[in-house]
Amino acid sequence: MNNLENLFLPPQNFAGLAAPYSDFKTARVVILPVPYDGTTEWHSGTREGPQAIIEASPYLELYDMELKQETYKVGIHTLPAVQPVLSRPQDMVHSVYAIAGELIKQGKFVVMLGGEHSLSLGLVEALKETYQDLSVLQLDAHADLRDEYLGTKYNNACVMRRVLEHCPITQIGIRSLSLEEQQFLNQKNMSPFYSSTIASDLAMVSQIMESLSSNVYISIDLDVFDPSIMSAIGTPEPGGMQWSEVLNIIKAVAKQKHIVGFDLMELCPAEGPSACAFLAAKLAYKLIGYALLLKH
Amino acid sequence: MNNLENLFLPPQNFAGLAAPYSDFKTARVVILPVPYDGTTEWHSGTREGPQAIIEASPYLELYDMELKQETYKVGIHTLPAVQPVLSRPQDMVHSVYAIAGELIKQGKFVVMLGGEHSLSLGLVEALKETYQDLSVLQLDAHADLRDEYLGTKYNNACVMRRVLEHCPITQIGIRSLSLEEQQFLNQKNMSPFYSSTIASDLAMVSQIMESLSSNVYISIDLDVFDPSIMSAIGTPEPGGMQWSEVLNIIKAVAKQKHIVGFDLMELCPAEGPSACAFLAAKLAYKLIGYALLLKH
Amino acid sequence: MNNLENLFLPPQNFAGLAAPYSDFKTARVVILPVPYDGTTEWHSGTREGPQAIIEASPYLELYDMELKQETYKVGIHTLPAVQPVLSRPQDMVHSVYAIAGELIKQGKFVVMLGGEHSLSLGLVEALKETYQDLSVLQLDAHADLRDEYLGTKYNNACVMRRVLEHCPITQIGIRSLSLEEQQFLNQKNMSPFYSSTIASDLAMVSQIMESLSSNVYISIDLDVFDPSIMSAIGTPEPGGMQWSEVLNIIKAVAKQKHIVGFDLMELCPAEGPSACAFLAAKLAYKLIGYALLLKH
Amino acid sequence: MNNLENLFLPPQNFAGLAAPYSDFKTARVVILPVPYDGTTEWHSGTREGPQAIIEASPYLELYDMELKQETYKVGIHTLPAVQPVLSRPQDMVHSVYAIAGELIKQGKFVVMLGGEHSLSLGLVEALKETYQDLSVLQLDAHADLRDEYLGTKYNNACVMRRVLEHCPITQIGIRSLSLEEQQFLNQKNMSPFYSSTIASDLAMVSQIMESLSSNVYISIDLDVFDPSIMSAIGTPEPGGMQWSEVLNIIKAVAKQKHIVGFDLMELCPAEGPSACAFLAAKLAYKLIGYALLLKH
Amino acid sequence: MNNLENLFLPPQNFAGLAAPYSDFKTARVVILPVPYDGTTEWHSGTREGPQAIIEASPYLELYDMELKQETYKVGIHTLPAVQPVLSRPQDMVHSVYAIAGELIKQGKFVVMLGGEHSLSLGLVEALKETYQDLSVLQLDAHADLRDEYLGTKYNNACVMRRVLEHCPITQIGIRSLSLEEQQFLNQKNMSPFYSSTIASDLAMVSQIMESLSSNVYISIDLDVFDPSIMSAIGTPEPGGMQWSEVLNIIKAVAKQKHIVGFDLMELCPAEGPSACAFLAAKLAYKLIGYALLLKH
Amino acid sequence: MNNLENLFLPPQNFAGLAAPYSDFKTARVVILPVPYDGTTEWHSGTREGPQAIIEASPYLELYDMELKQETYKVGIHTLPAVQPVLSRPQDMVHSVYAIAGELIKQGKFVVMLGGEHSLSLGLVEALKETYQDLSVLQLDAHADLRDEYLGTKYNNACVMRRVLEHCPITQIGIRSLSLEEQQFLNQKNMSPFYSSTIASDLAMVSQIMESLSSNVYISIDLDVFDPSIMSAIGTPEPGGMQWSEVLNIIKAVAKQKHIVGFDLMELCPAEGPSACAFLAAKLAYKLIGYALLLKH
Repeated sequence: MNNLENLFLPPQNFAGLAAPYSDFKTARVVILPVPYDGTTEWHSGTREGPQAIIEASPYLELYDMELKQETYKVGIHTLPAVQPVLSRPQDMVHSVYAIAGELIKQGKFVVMLGGEHSLSLGLVEALKETYQDLSVLQLDAHADLRDEYLGTKYNNACVMRRVLEHCPITQIGIRSLSLEEQQFLNQKNMSPFYSSTIASDLAMVSQIMESLSSNVYISIDLDVFDPSIMSAIGTPEPGGMQWSEVLNIIKAVAKQKHIVGFDLMELCPAEGPSACAFLAAKLAYKLIGYALLLKH
Repeated sequence: MNNLENLFLPPQNFAGLAAPYSDFKTARVVILPVPYDGTTEWHSGTREGPQAIIEASPYLELYDMELKQETYKVGIHTLPAVQPVLSRPQDMVHSVYAIAGELIKQGKFVVMLGGEHSLSLGLVEALKETYQDLSVLQLDAHADLRDEYLGTKYNNACVMRRVLEHCPITQIGIRSLSLEEQQFLNQKNMSPFYSSTIASDLAMVSQIMESLSSNVYISIDLDVFDPSIMSAIGTPEPGGMQWSEVLNIIKAVAKQKHIVGFDLMELCPAEGPSACAFLAAKLAYKLIGYALLLKH
Repeated sequence: MNNLENLFLPPQNFAGLAAPYSDFKTARVVILPVPYDGTTEWHSGTREGPQAIIEASPYLELYDMELKQETYKVGIHTLPAVQPVLSRPQDMVHSVYAIAGELIKQGKFVVMLGGEHSLSLGLVEALKETYQDLSVLQLDAHADLRDEYLGTKYNNACVMRRVLEHCPITQIGIRSLSLEEQQFLNQKNMSPFYSSTIASDLAMVSQIMESLSSNVYISIDLDVFDPSIMSAIGTPEPGGMQWSEVLNIIKAVAKQKHIVGFDLMELCPAEGPSACAFLAAKLAYKLIGYALLLKH
Repeated sequence: MNNLENLFLPPQNFAGLAAPYSDFKTARVVILPVPYDGTTEWHSGTREGPQAIIEASPYLELYDMELKQETYKVGIHTLPAVQPVLSRPQDMVHSVYAIAGELIKQGKFVVMLGGEHSLSLGLVEALKETYQDLSVLQLDAHADLRDEYLGTKYNNACVMRRVLEHCPITQIGIRSLSLEEQQFLNQKNMSPFYSSTIASDLAMVSQIMESLSSNVYISIDLDVFDPSIMSAIGTPEPGGMQWSEVLNIIKAVAKQKHIVGFDLMELCPAEGPSACAFLAAKLAYKLIGYALLLKH
Repeated sequence: MNNLENLFLPPQNFAGLAAPYSDFKTARVVILPVPYDGTTEWHSGTREGPQAIIEASPYLELYDMELKQETYKVGIHTLPAVQPVLSRPQDMVHSVYAIAGELIKQGKFVVMLGGEHSLSLGLVEALKETYQDLSVLQLDAHADLRDEYLGTKYNNACVMRRVLEHCPITQIGIRSLSLEEQQFLNQKNMSPFYSSTIASDLAMVSQIMESLSSNVYISIDLDVFDPSIMSAIGTPEPGGMQWSEVLNIIKAVAKQKHIVGFDLMELCPAEGPSACAFLAAKLAYKLIGYALLLKH
Repeated sequence: MNNLENLFLPPQNFAGLAAPYSDFKTARVVILPVPYDGTTEWHSGTREGPQAIIEASPYLELYDMELKQETYKVGIHTLPAVQPVLSRPQDMVHSVYAIAGELIKQGKFVVMLGGEHSLSLGLVEALKETYQDLSVLQLDAHADLRDEYLGTKYNNACVMRRVLEHCPITQIGIRSLSLEEQQFLNQKNMSPFYSSTIASDLAMVSQIMESLSSNVYISIDLDVFDPSIMSAIGTPEPGGMQWSEVLNIIKAVAKQKHIVGFDLMELCPAEGPSACAFLAAKLAYKLIGYALLLKH
C-alpha cells in the first residue's frame, strides 16, 4: 500500500506521528499508556485517560511557539497500553516497574499516561535503580500520604507514602489533607507548597529548587489544576493551579535540574469536557519540549 | 420532627418504603447493595449499579397487578452499601460471604444488587452452608466459565467456574462462549440453554426444572436480556432474552422450587438509558413477589 | 430576501414545511407545542419534548409509503409554544383549554405535543364543547386514575380521573396500577386493555371499537411503547407495545371512527436516544395521515 | 449486623458520617435537602441538586486544613428530602417554613440544599421569628427582585422581593438585572455589590459588614460563582466570582457577625461536570466550619 | 521489549488481534476504516463510527459458537483510517476507490467501516473492475435513490442511484421513501423488499437469491436494524429489522453466492448506547465468518 | 389567535423578541445562523452552534446593566438558518456572500452565528464591496493562516489566509501556530497579539487601534476564550482570554472605530456545558450594544 500511503491518516499514536519520528528504535521519548484504575474510590474511569490523551494529541500543533522548535523531532514512540493485572494492586505496579526498567535500560525518556496515581510508584522504583539521587516533584491537590486505604497499601491515596520509602518528594498544589496526613507531615517535618500560597515568584521557585536533587521525576496528578480547566478527574478540589503557573514551575525545574521522566495521571475523561484531554496532551508535549530541548 | 414526618419523602431505600415495612427486624427480605467492579475489563461503572436501581425503585407501583398483592408488605430492608475491599478480588467475595452468612442465619431472604458478577460466589458459598442441595440458576449472556482471567481466578469471567466447585448450575440465555469455555462444557458434558433456542415452552421449562435441585439460587447477569431493553451493561450481546421470557421462566421456577435468594448483577448505568435501572428495579420487585408470594 | 429564499432552510416548524403548506389560515392541522412539566415527579424534562419532536420532524420523508400520499398537503401549521403558567397546575390546563377552544372554533384539527399528560384535560374539555358524544382513547402504560397526587388533583397521575368527569375513556397498554387505581377500576367496572394481552387481532379491535363513541380523541402517553423503542420518558415500564401494534390499532380507529384530535405526551428527550423524538415525530405524521386521509 | 458494621460504607448522608456524629439529637447542624424546581424557567433539574451535593460530600476530607479542625465533630445530621408539594409554589415555601421552624425551635443550625431559590423565603420567615434583627446576605448573579413572574409572586425570580418584605438584604455578585429590577433598586435606593467591582479588599468588606445586622442568614445562589467553576446551574452568567473571593467574604462575616443559617441553591447537576457538586459540598462544609468554629 | 510483550494489551485493531493474525501480508481480510461524514444532513458524527466499532471489537469472543470456528484465524488486518478529503464528496469516494482497488488486486477481502453511506460507491466501483457480474445487496431503511441532494450527486441520500449506474441492486429493509424515489422505483420497475413484509421465509429468501448475481457485495446501512437495537444512527426509522432476521438473510446469501466484500456504514456513536458499536463489531465478525468459512 | 397571543411564548428567535422588535423591515440588526461544519477536522458539531446560541438567548436579560439601555430596541431580526451546500466548501462560502451582500444592501448590520470559521470569508467579501477600507479584527486561538488543508483552500484552518487576500487583519489571542504559519507571519512581517502577552492595558489597546482601519469587521472564533469558560469548541487551547479581556478590547474598538458587522464562530455545543452557548449569546448581545449604542 506504500504508493497510497498519503491517502491514510497517521497511525493512532501520541501526536499522530508518522515514521520515522514514531519509531521505537530512534525515539528519545516513549509514551507508556496504563489504563488501570483498580483502586479508585469514587468515579471510576481513569482507565479511559491514556486513550483520551492520545486521541486528542494529533490535534496539537507540532510546532512549539514558545520554544520555536518542532518538539516531535526528538522522536516519540507510543507503546501499546499496558495490560491490566487485577490480582492485587501491587502486581500492577510491578508491571509498570518491569516495563519502565527495560525502557530506561534502553535509554528512553519515559512518559507515563495514567490511569491512577498508584502506578507512579512502579516508575519511580525503576528510575531509582539508575538515578541514586532521584527526587520526585509531585503536583497534586492531595498529599496521597495515607498509609493504607480500602484494604491496601497500594491505593492511589497512599502512593506518595510508598514513594517516600524510596526517595524524597516535593509537593506542590496540595489543598486537601486528612488528619492522618497532617499528622504525618508534622511528624516528618514536611511542608508542602500549598495551592493557596502558590505564586510563581522567585522565592518559591528557589525554595522548590533547593528541595530537589539534580535528577528529578515529575509526577502530575492532573487534579493539581483548578477544576475550571480540569474537571475530568475523580476528586476536583476548588482553588487549584492555573495553566501558566504549572508551566512556569516546570520550566524552571527544566532549566536548573535534569528531568528524568514524568507522568500525567488521573485523567477521567467522562467527568469533564474533552478540553481536559486536550490540555493533558498539550501539557505532555510541552513537558517533553521543556525536558529535552530547553537550554540549561 | 415526628409531627412533620409527612412533609418528607421516604428515606432512600429499595421501593421507597417507610417504617415499619423497611425495618430490618421484621423484614423478610434484605437488599444488599455491593458497589464493586474491581475486575471489570471494558467499561467500568457497575459500581454505580446498586444505587441506580435503588433510586429508580421508589417509582415502581408497590401493587403487583399480576399477583394482585402489595409485595412490600413482606418487609424489605435495604442495607447500606458494602465497603469495597481492594486488596484482592477474593477479599471482596469474602466480605459478601461474611455478610450474607449473617443475614441467612437471621432468616433473611437476601437480594444482592451488583456490582460485578464475581460477587455472586460469596452469596452462593454462604447459602451452601444452609442448603446442602443448593443449585444455581444462572441467567447470563456469557458462560463465565473461564478458569482465570487478567491474572485472577476471581474475575467476573470466572465466577461460574468457581460456583461449580460448590454446586451444580443451570445456564440460560448464553450466546457467547470462548473456545476454552466450549471445551470445558464439552468435557463436563454440560449443555446451556442457549439464547437462540429459548422459547418458554413447556418442554424447555420442564428440562430446566429437572436440572435444578429443590433449593435454587438465581443469579442474573442483566446482560441476559436483549440489548434493546438492557443496554446499560458492559458487554451487550445482541440476540438476548425478552422481559416476558425471563419472567416466565422464573415464575415457573418459583412455582415448583424453593427460591432461596437471588442477585441482579452488572448494571452499568452510564452505558444506557435510565430505563435499564427501572427494569432492574421492577425485576427485583417482581422476583421478590414470585419467590415469596406465589402459591406452589 | 425573496430572491435568495432557496438559500435558506425552511423555518423550524413541524415537518420543516415552507409556505403555503405551513400557513395558519389554510392549514387543516395545527400543531400545539406545550413545554410544561410542572407536576412531574421523577425525571423532569418533558418540557423539552415538543421542541425535540419538532426538531426531528424535518428529517421525516413527507411522502407516506403506506398511504401513498404526501400528507403535508392538508396543511400543517405549527404554533409557537404555549407559555408556562406556574401559579397552579389547573391554570396551565386552562391555557390549553382556551387556546384549543379557539382553534376548534376555527375548524382546526389540533395535535398537541407535550409536555406532561395533565395537559390533555384542557384539550378534552375544549373538544367536549363541540363534540357531545366524545370519547377518549388513551394509550398509556399507567392508568393515571389517582384522585390526587403530590398535593394536587391536576397531577399527571390524575389526568384520566379528571377526563372521566367529562367523557368515557378506553385504556390500552396499561401495565402498571396502584392499589387505589385497581380499586377504582373495580368499582367503576372498567377494564383496560392490558399490555400483556394485547394482540391486534380482530376480537380486540372490535371490542375497542365498541367501547368508543363516533367522535374519538386519542391521547398517547408515549410510555405506552416498549422501552426498547421509547426510553425517553419518565417512568419506562418494561413489557410495552410495539410500533406496529400501536399503528394498527389507531388505523382501525381511523377507519371506523371520526378522530377529532390527538396528543403525544411525556417525551422526555434527555432520558433516551434521539431515535425516540424521531419516532414521536413519525407517529404524529402517520396519525395525521390516518385521521385525515384514510378512506372510511 | 453490628459485628460486621465495618464491612459497610457509612450511610448516605452529608459527609458520609457514621454515628454518633450524624445523630439528630446531638447534631448541631441539620442538612435540609429540598429537591424542588417547580418555578424554574429554562433548564429544569435543580431538583437533582441536593442529592448530587450529598453524594459528592463523602469524598471531602473531613479535616479542614485552614481551620485545623475536624468540622464534622459539631455533629451534622442529614434529614430525608422534603416532599415536593405541587399545588402552588407558596405551598412548597410553607413546607420549608414549617420544617425550619421546628428545627430552629430545637436549636439546630439549618443548612438548606436546593432546589430552587424561591425556597429561601420559607427559611428566612422561620428564622425571622427567632431573630428580630435578621438580615440576609445574598450571593447571586441575579437580583431576584421581580414582583411576579410566569404567573406567580413566588417564582425564584421574585424571591428576594418577597424576602425584603421581612428583612433587609445585602446583595453581592449581581451581574444581570432586568429593567424592572433596576428601577426597583433605584426607587428603594438599594445598591448591590456588583460582580464587576468586587475585590475582597477591606473597604468593600467593611461596607458589607455595615450593611448587615448582627444575625445574618446567608443565601447563596450558586450562579454567583463564575461559570468556569460552576456551570451546573440554570442561567450561567459570565464574569462571576471566584472560589477564594466567596470564601473570603463569608469568612469575614463569620468573624464579625452571627451566622444563623445558610442555604446553597440552584445546583442543576445535569448542566455541568460533577466538579460543581463537589464544589458545593466543599462550600457547605467550609461554611459550617466558618459559622460554628471560627473565633470572633 | 519482546520479553515483556505479554505485559501489554494487543494493539488497537479489529478484534484486538496479535501477530500473526493481524499481519497485512497473510491476512485474508482487510478492515478499511473511513471516518468521513461530509454529506450528512442531520446529526453529524458517523466519522466516529469506525473507531467505535474497532474499540468495541476486542471484547468479542473470537470463537464463533454457531460456526464452531475461530474466525480470526483467516487473518484480519486493520488499516489506518483513510484521510478525509474535503474538497468535494466525489474526491473522497475516489480515495476509497483507489485504496480498495489496490487491496482487491492483492487478493484481499475488503470490509469497509463507515462513515457515511456515500463511500460505498468507491468500493463498488473497485470491485466491479474485477467482478463483471457484480450485484449489490443493500440492507437499509432508506432507498438512497435520490438523484441529487444538498447540492451534490454524491450525497449519501444518492449513493444507490450512483451504484445503479454500475450494477444491479437488491434492496432489503426499506421503510422510508421520498416521492421522487417512489416514482423512480415505479419507472425502473424495481421493487424493494420492504421492512414491513420481511420474514426470513423460504419464499422471500429464494426471491432475494434470484435477484442476485453470483458475486455479491453487501452494503449495510446500519439503520436497516430496528432502532431498539440500533439507535446510534442519523435517521432511525421505527419498524426495522431484527438481529436474527439480518443474520439469516446474509447466511443464506453466503451459502448460495460468492460474497466479495461488505461494508457497515452510518454508525453514529454519539446518538445511542455503546451497545450499538458492539452490535456492529459482532455483525462484522459474523459476516467475515459467513463469507469465508461457511460451506456452500 | 390574536386575542390569545399572551398565552404563547415569543417565537424562537435571538433574544426571544416579539414584534415589532423582531420584524425584518425595521430591524437594524440581522442574525444570520449558518449551521455548517463541512471542513471541520476533529469533533464535528459546530453545525449545532447557531441554534444553541439562539435557544440560550431568550434567557438573557434584555436590559444591559453596563450601557443602561435595552439593546433590543434597535430591532433584531433572526433569519432562518442558511441551507448547507455540500458540493464544495467554497460553494457554501458563496451562499453566505450572496445573502450577506443582499442584507448589507438593505442597510442591515449583520451578525453571523456559525458554524465553522471558513464562513467568515463570505461575509468579509460582501462587506468589502461596501467598505473599501475594511479591516478585520480576528479573535482566535489559532492563526488560521494555512494555505490549504485536507484538500481544500477553503478549510477553516485557511480562512484568514483567504481573508488576507481581501483586506488586512489584526490577530488577537493567538496561542497555537503551525510551522508553516509561523513562517508565513515572519515572511509577511505580521505580528499577532499573542494570548500570553495580552493585558488590556492602554499600550496594547492603542497598538490594536493603530492596526485597524476605520471600518472594522470583528470575527470571533470562540476558542479565543480560555477553555475554562469556553470548552464547547473543537480545539480548546489552554491559556486563553477571559470574558472581561475580550469585552474590554471590543468596547475600545467600538468607541474608536466603526464596527460594520461581526461573527461568532465555532461553537460546538456537544463539547461543553450549556454555559458556553449562554456566554456566546450574551457576547452577541453585548457586541450589538457596543457597536450600535456606544457613544464615540
